Amino acid sequence: MENQKLEFTRHNSTNIFIGSDLFPEIGAKFNIAGLPKSCAIITNEPIAKIYLEPLIKSLYEINIKSVFIVIPEGETYKNFDTAMDIINQLNQNEVERDCPIIGLGGGVICDLSGFVASIYKRGLPLILIPTSLLAMVDASFGGKNAINTDNAKNLVGTFYQPLMTFMDINLLHTLPLSQLYYGLVEALKHGLIYDMAYFNYIVKNLDDIKAKKASTIQRVIRRSVYIKKEFICEDELDVGRRVHLNFGHTFGHALETVGEYRRYNHAEAVGLGMLMATKAAVNTGILKEDFSEQLKEVLKILEMPTTISLTISVEKIVESIKSDKKRYHDGINFILPEKPGRTVVYKVKSNELDEFVRNSLV
Amino acid sequence: MENQKLEFTRHNSTNIFIGSDLFPEIGAKFNIAGLPKSCAIITNEPIAKIYLEPLIKSLYEINIKSVFIVIPEGETYKNFDTAMDIINQLNQNEVERDCPIIGLGGGVICDLSGFVASIYKRGLPLILIPTSLLAMVDASFGGKNAINTDNAKNLVGTFYQPLMTFMDINLLHTLPLSQLYYGLVEALKHGLIYDMAYFNYIVKNLDDIKAKKASTIQRVIRRSVYIKKEFICEDELDVGRRVHLNFGHTFGHALETVGEYRRYNHAEAVGLGMLMATKAAVNTGILKEDFSEQLKEVLKILEMPTTISLTISVEKIVESIKSDKKRYHDGINFILPEKPGRTVVYKVKSNELDEFVRNSLV
Repeated sequence: MENQKLEFTRHNSTNIFIGSDLFPEIGAKFNIAGLPKSCAIITNEPIAKIYLEPLIKSLYEINIKSVFIVIPEGETYKNFDTAMDIINQLNQNEVERDCPIIGLGGGVICDLSGFVASIYKRGLPLILIPTSLLAMVDASFGGKNAINTDNAKNLVGTFYQPLMTFMDINLLHTLPLSQLYYGLVEALKHGLIYDMAYFNYIVKNLDDIKAKKASTIQRVIRRSVYIKKEFICEDELDVGRRVHLNFGHTFGHALETVGEYRRYNHAEAVGLGMLMATKAAVNTGILKEDFSEQLKEVLKILEMPTTISLTISVEKIVESIKSDKKRYHDGINFILPEKPGRTVVYKVKSNELDEFVRNSLV
Repeated sequence: MENQKLEFTRHNSTNIFIGSDLFPEIGAKFNIAGLPKSCAIITNEPIAKIYLEPLIKSLYEINIKSVFIVIPEGETYKNFDTAMDIINQLNQNEVERDCPIIGLGGGVICDLSGFVASIYKRGLPLILIPTSLLAMVDASFGGKNAINTDNAKNLVGTFYQPLMTFMDINLLHTLPLSQLYYGLVEALKHGLIYDMAYFNYIVKNLDDIKAKKASTIQRVIRRSVYIKKEFICEDELDVGRRVHLNFGHTFGHALETVGEYRRYNHAEAVGLGMLMATKAAVNTGILKEDFSEQLKEVLKILEMPTTISLTISVEKIVESIKSDKKRYHDGINFILPEKPGRTVVYKVKSNELDEFVRNSLV
């Protein structure tokens, strides 16, 4: 038996731009990045009504032609059928391999356009323009995308880095307060896993954030981007350090699934998941300085639930965690807080899972 | 506007093993690569009948458990429906993120299992065991996978490197001679783009190759792997040097499409495509030392067509090339021979395409 070894190195970078009124700036960045004078915009119906025309106009003013694909709103459309529909439309519009895909929208649009951009013609340049705070601090950079199947959330996806992400604070003006809160839950998570001072900054400045004061919002986005960056750049493929960003998510995904994506939205589930993980950390003796009350208090202000509904079956939570894609062969990794601003990986064996979950209920 | 830049570097490697009777060796390589003691085998019906049980048995003997998914044979199954079906079966079988996918089969199986391995749970380790010469010298390494849509061949896919590829010459014993020839067409291509001595070696040793003499076949595989490696390792994402491997393929894909994948198989189309590209190179003055007769002669021995059927519409060929995914914004790149063993990139503008194709007909 003879052997030949092939080595491949792939470099990717994402330029993240944060500021106000960024649409007129996008074209110049196209030129700097050497992109062609065309693009395909993917967005959803409500976003299209407000922002599609201004975006197309801004691009057109510097001679960038665009085609656009508008899909219905909602997580239920984050599936293979929608992806195939988008792909067929890209093909019908003769979108070519060097033509950037612009995803304009929230998390669902970021995920769908990222996935499509990664598989259509084996990959096109991806540009994301998140329109929610949640997408700004999370889904619009880092390269994780996903779609749901009938059986499981985010079962299918790729790691595919956007070339550029434009975080335009102006776009948050039309965002309902409840959705602003969803983003803040992820931002609080960034504080809890990396920097408790950031957590406290958010708590102290909640009034300014609610008022969408640009400088405060921009500071939140900047800090969340910085923290997430610290976890992902050395671990693009989520096999090491990146796993800490899952704080609250293993429990959270299970709550979403068991609630059939109606009982809890992602932020509500993650909020509860962080409370569960904190309780688990106290139970296991990992966490001495219990901060659950602090966390509960701010979650309440953000109108998030802080106790799990009695209608949610514990058996189903356990079952759902078992099918979570982060499960490895020898058990399930949970991210538990070790102290405020720091988390650790804690492995629970399959046969201990049931008890572990029961003891973590909030 | 402020700016944060994220940088990512991804390293991949493929270990290619070439030899005879490799099944008993696979398990040891599992251990060296640190893979878990389980795997999911994807194969098709005719291959399963001959090789699935021996493979499962070899793995089982060193305690590697396997689940298997058997799909029907043929290019028509290289589509989203089959990919989704495989994904659902993987999920039902609780295949986890660290569990390797083994693709056992020809080009279609390599493509499908590569694509599925790249998107299921955002990527699983991929092992390929090609069962045809064509898959050994082409589809089983380099990381390009694809599936067809109703509208276009290979419209969707990813770049995803196998961790290991086992090229077991024994598996070729059951391969029909016609399919051995398909592999030789790609091997001849490797000669024409890089090393005319290799082209001549194949021509001279056709009798031994037909007789499936192990040492000769192994030498062919070794040399083709080496040559393809020279083109892909520095250009994983096919934006530079790798494009030379498309010699004969831009014309070839169009012939396949226009013939609705029935008139010409891939090898026949690529053979004709290489003849067309050679004629185009002579027409444009790029190629002085015309080798068409030599190429025609060997293609005839391999029972390949050397003239395009009159039933094939030239208009449709042009139309199909226009939708080829290698088209960039300002024209279409063809790979034309400059001399035997060397090719160049030649750009044809969209408005000159029709005449260029007409003059290249063989």
